[in-house]
Amino acid sequence: MQEPLVIGGRELASRLFLGTGKFPSHMIPDVVKASGAQVVTVALRRVDPDFPQENIINYVPGDCILMPNTSGARNAREAVRIAKLGRAAGCGSWVKIEVISDNRYLLPDNYETIKATEELAADGFVVLPYVSPDLMVARKLEAVGAAAVMPLGAPIGSNRGLKTKEMIRILIEEISLPIIVDAGIGRPSQAAEAMEMGAAAVLVNTAIATAGAPVAMARAFCKAVQAGRAAFLANPGDVHEYARASSPLTGFLRDE
Amino acid sequence: MQEPLVIGGRELASRLFLGTGKFPSHMIPDVVKASGAQVVTVALRRVDPDFPQENIINYVPGDCILMPNTSGARNAREAVRIAKLGRAAGCGSWVKIEVISDNRYLLPDNYETIKATEELAADGFVVLPYVSPDLMVARKLEAVGAAAVMPLGAPIGSNRGLKTKEMIRILIEEISLPIIVDAGIGRPSQAAEAMEMGAAAVLVNTAIATAGAPVAMARAFCKAVQAGRAAFLANPGDVHEYARASSPLTGFLRDE
Amino acid sequence: MQEPLVIGGRELASRLFLGTGKFPSHMIPDVVKASGAQVVTVALRRVDPDFPQENIINYVPGDCILMPNTSGARNAREAVRIAKLGRAAGCGSWVKIEVISDNRYLLPDNYETIKATEELAADGFVVLPYVSPDLMVARKLEAVGAAAVMPLGAPIGSNRGLKTKEMIRILIEEISLPIIVDAGIGRPSQAAEAMEMGAAAVLVNTAIATAGAPVAMARAFCKAVQAGRAAFLANPGDVHEYARASSPLTGFLRDE
Amino acid sequence: MQEPLVIGGRELASRLFLGTGKFPSHMIPDVVKASGAQVVTVALRRVDPDFPQENIINYVPGDCILMPNTSGARNAREAVRIAKLGRAAGCGSWVKIEVISDNRYLLPDNYETIKATEELAADGFVVLPYVSPDLMVARKLEAVGAAAVMPLGAPIGSNRGLKTKEMIRILIEEISLPIIVDAGIGRPSQAAEAMEMGAAAVLVNTAIATAGAPVAMARAFCKAVQAGRAAFLANPGDVHEYARASSPLTGFLRDE
Repeated sequence: MQEPLVIGGRELASRLFLGTGKFPSHMIPDVVKASGAQVVTVALRRVDPDFPQENIINYVPGDCILMPNTSGARNAREAVRIAKLGRAAGCGSWVKIEVISDNRYLLPDNYETIKATEELAADGFVVLPYVSPDLMVARKLEAVGAAAVMPLGAPIGSNRGLKTKEMIRILIEEISLPIIVDAGIGRPSQAAEAMEMGAAAVLVNTAIATAGAPVAMARAFCKAVQAGRAAFLANPGDVHEYARASSPLTGFLRDE
Repeated sequence: MQEPLVIGGRELASRLFLGTGKFPSHMIPDVVKASGAQVVTVALRRVDPDFPQENIINYVPGDCILMPNTSGARNAREAVRIAKLGRAAGCGSWVKIEVISDNRYLLPDNYETIKATEELAADGFVVLPYVSPDLMVARKLEAVGAAAVMPLGAPIGSNRGLKTKEMIRILIEEISLPIIVDAGIGRPSQAAEAMEMGAAAVLVNTAIATAGAPVAMARAFCKAVQAGRAAFLANPGDVHEYARASSPLTGFLRDE
Repeated sequence: MQEPLVIGGRELASRLFLGTGKFPSHMIPDVVKASGAQVVTVALRRVDPDFPQENIINYVPGDCILMPNTSGARNAREAVRIAKLGRAAGCGSWVKIEVISDNRYLLPDNYETIKATEELAADGFVVLPYVSPDLMVARKLEAVGAAAVMPLGAPIGSNRGLKTKEMIRILIEEISLPIIVDAGIGRPSQAAEAMEMGAAAVLVNTAIATAGAPVAMARAFCKAVQAGRAAFLANPGDVHEYARASSPLTGFLRDE
Repeated sequence: MQEPLVIGGRELASRLFLGTGKFPSHMIPDVVKASGAQVVTVALRRVDPDFPQENIINYVPGDCILMPNTSGARNAREAVRIAKLGRAAGCGSWVKIEVISDNRYLLPDNYETIKATEELAADGFVVLPYVSPDLMVARKLEAVGAAAVMPLGAPIGSNRGLKTKEMIRILIEEISLPIIVDAGIGRPSQAAEAMEMGAAAVLVNTAIATAGAPVAMARAFCKAVQAGRAAFLANPGDVHEYARASSPLTGFLRDE
C-alpha cells in the first residue's frame, strides 16, 4: 500500500529504523520484531566475532539490514577506520557515520562527517551520515555520495522531540536524498509528525529503550510511522485560522 | 491487547470516533471501515426516515454506535428537543451535545451545554457534551451525569491541532470521566499526542474529509490513535535537557 | 506617545497592572515605582483598617488605583460580600473578581464570576473579572457590565506563559472590552507577546515576586509591556516561509 | 545599570544591533536614533566613496560603530576580499561575515565562514560571523579568533522568530564568546526572549524595515532588548506545572 523507500539499492517497506545502543542484547529480537524495523544500527564496539554469545549481531534477526555506526569516532579518520573494521568483520557495507567530540550534548561534527562520508562512499559503502541539520552540509553530503542524510531532531537520548523542525523542513524541501530524522524523537506522535513533514524515515532508540514497556513502545512507533507516512501521502487538508462548520446546521428548529 | 474504553456500558475497542458532517453520504461506509471507528456522529438534520435513500443512517455500518449530535441548537432547550427527536426517530440513546451561538469560531456555550446534559442524562441518554475546556465546567458535567467530556482542541474545522493542550492536560488529570478531544485535530500526529497525554479517545471529522485521499487518511488516523494509546500505556521515558549517550562509545580506538 | 487605556472612566498611561499577593508589604513601594503600574491589586484579607502599620494599602502609592481582589471567595455570594466590605473599608469601587474553588490549579469558576460581575456592576463597581478564556463567557460579561475581561494565560503562579494563546486571540478579536491577560505570565517576553497580540494590558505578580531581583524585574516588565504595545501600534511586518534578502547582494565581485 | 557588552575592545551600552539592508538611506538616521543601536551593519555594495550623496555611510550617525557585511560573497575568498575593500575604503575594522550560496533560504555556508573568519581575524579585523547554529562550528570560530558568534534564529527576512532556539540555547551554554542572534527575529517579544535566554545581543533589520511605522518599531525593539537583558540579570523565578496561590486566601469569610 505504501511505496517502499529505496536506499543503497534495497527496498525497505518499513520506515522505522531501530537503534540498539541502549538495549541489553537479549531484548533486541523482540523489540526488532515489534518495531517492524528492517534497518538496525549497532555500535561496532559491541561486535565481537571471537565471543559469539556476546556478539550483538547474533541478536539481530537475519533478514534485517545491519547498519553499524561509528560511535566513539572523534574525527573522520577514526570513523573511516571503524567502518572498515566493521565491514571486514562481516557487518556489511552500510554504515552510519557518527563523529562526536562534544561530551555534553553529543552533537556531531559536520565537517569531519563530510570527509568520512566522501571517503567511505568512494570505497563502496552505503553511507548514512548523522548531522546537525544544515542545508549547506546536506548539499555537500549529496555531492560526495551519501545515501541519505540523518539530521538530529534534538540531542541524542534527550527525548525532546523535533526541536530543529525548521531546519529539517528546509532539508526535506531542498535535498533530493532521503532525510531520516535521527536522535531526539521521544514519542510516537513526534515520529508521526516528522513523517507528515515528508521525512523518508526516522531512527528511534532511546524512546523505546527507556519506556516502561519497550516492546509495546516499539509497536507504537511502528504504527505511528506508518500513520505519518500515510498522512503525508494522503495530502492533508488546509489549516484555517477560523472555524469551518463540520456539521450542517440543524435548521429546522428555527422554523417554529 | 489494549484495554477497551467503556462508555454508557459499551466496550469500545477503537478510540477513534468519527464525525461525518463533511462527507457526502456515499463515502461514509468506506471511511468508517478504514478508520475502524465504532462510534459515528451524525447531524440529526441529515436523518430523514421518510426518505431512506437520503437517510445518512443507512450509510453508517450497522455495528457502529450512532451518536447523533445536536448541531444547530443555540441553547439547552433546542438541544434537548433535537436529542429527543433523534431518539424517537430510532437513533438510539447516545447524544453529543453541541450548543453553538457563535458564528465565526463555532465555539460551544458551556453553560447551556451543562443544562442540556443534566436534563438528558436524567432522561436516560448517554450524553457526551462538547465544550470549551474548563475544569469547573467539567466538574459540573461530571456531577450532572455526563458519560464523557469532549473538549475542543481548536475551533471546529480549523485543522489547527491541540491549541488548548494545557487545559486538556488539566482535565485529564482532574476528571475521572473519559476525556475525548473533539474539534481541531488536523493531523494523525496530533491525535497521537492527545492519546499520549492520556485522552480516552479523539473525534475526527474535517481532517479526514478535507484530505486528498480521505480513506487513506482515515486509516492513518486509526493507526495514530492506536500508537498514541499504546505509548501512553507503555510508560514513556523521561525527557532530558542534555544528551544521553545511546551508543556505548567505541573505546578501542583510543588505545592506539 | 502611546494612547491611554481607559477603564472605568480613568485614563491609564501604564498597561502593566501589578499584583501584590506574593510580596512582603515593605517591598511594594519600590516594586510599584519600578513597574510604573497605575493599577495595583491587593487581597482584601490584607486590608486591616484597625492596624494601619500592617495595612497593605498604606504601602500602595497614593496615586495608584487600588483594585482589591476577592481571593478566598468560592462563589458569587462570597465575592460580592468581599467586594462590598472592601468598598466600605475605603478601598474604592474597582474590584477584581476571583472566584476559585479548585485547590490544585486555582482555576476560576466562570459561572459564579458572571453572577458576581452582574451584581457588582449594577451596584456601581468597576468590575474586572478573572476568568478561564471562553468566548461565550466573555460575551456574557460584556452584557452584564464588566469593565474589562481578564483571562488567564496559565495557572496562577506557574510562570508558564501564554498557554491559552489561541483562546485569548479569539477574545481580542471578538470582544470590544479591554482584554487583560492575568495569571501565568512568567517572563517579560511573554508580556510583550500578549501586547503584540492586541491585549489591552497584562497583570503580573508571581513573575516579579519570585525573581531574584524583584525591582529590576519590575522595570523589565515595564519596558516589555511598552515594547509590545508599541509594536502592536507600529503594524508589524508579515511573516514569510522563505527568506527575503535583507542586504542587496554585493554584485560587483561577480564581474571579475 | 546594565553592564556593557564588550566586543573588539569597545564597550557597548546597547545590545540591539541594527541592519540597514532594507531601508532607504534617508530613513536610517531616525531609525538608528530610535533604536539606540551603537552597531550598524551596512552592505559594502552601498558604500561608494565617489558619490558621497549616495554613500550609505553618510547616513549612519558618527558615533556608531560601522559593521560592514560581506553580503554577496559566495565563498571565503570573496568574503575576505570584500572585507579588505571595506577597510581600505574607510569602513573600519569590524566586519560581519556573510557567505551565502543558497538563493531560496539564504542560509550561510558555515565552512567558508570559518575560513574567512580565520583569515580576517589574523589580519586584525574584529570578526562577527553569521552562521547556522552548530556547536562544533562555534567552537572552531572561537578557536580561530571570532569576536562573537551570530547564529540565525530563522531564515533572513522571514520574521519567523526563534526557530532554532534549542541550538542557540546550547551555544549560549557552551561558548564563551558573545552569542548574537541574527536573522529571523520578527517581533520585539522574540528579541526579549533571546535576551532572557542569555544572548549577548540581537541584530534586527527586516522586522523594523517592514513595520508600518519603522521608527516606532525601532523604539519598541530598543525597549524589548533592554527588558530581556534586565530579566536575564534579575534571575527569573522557576516555572511550575501547578498553580501557586499568589494571593493569600481571604479566610475570614469561612468563619461565618
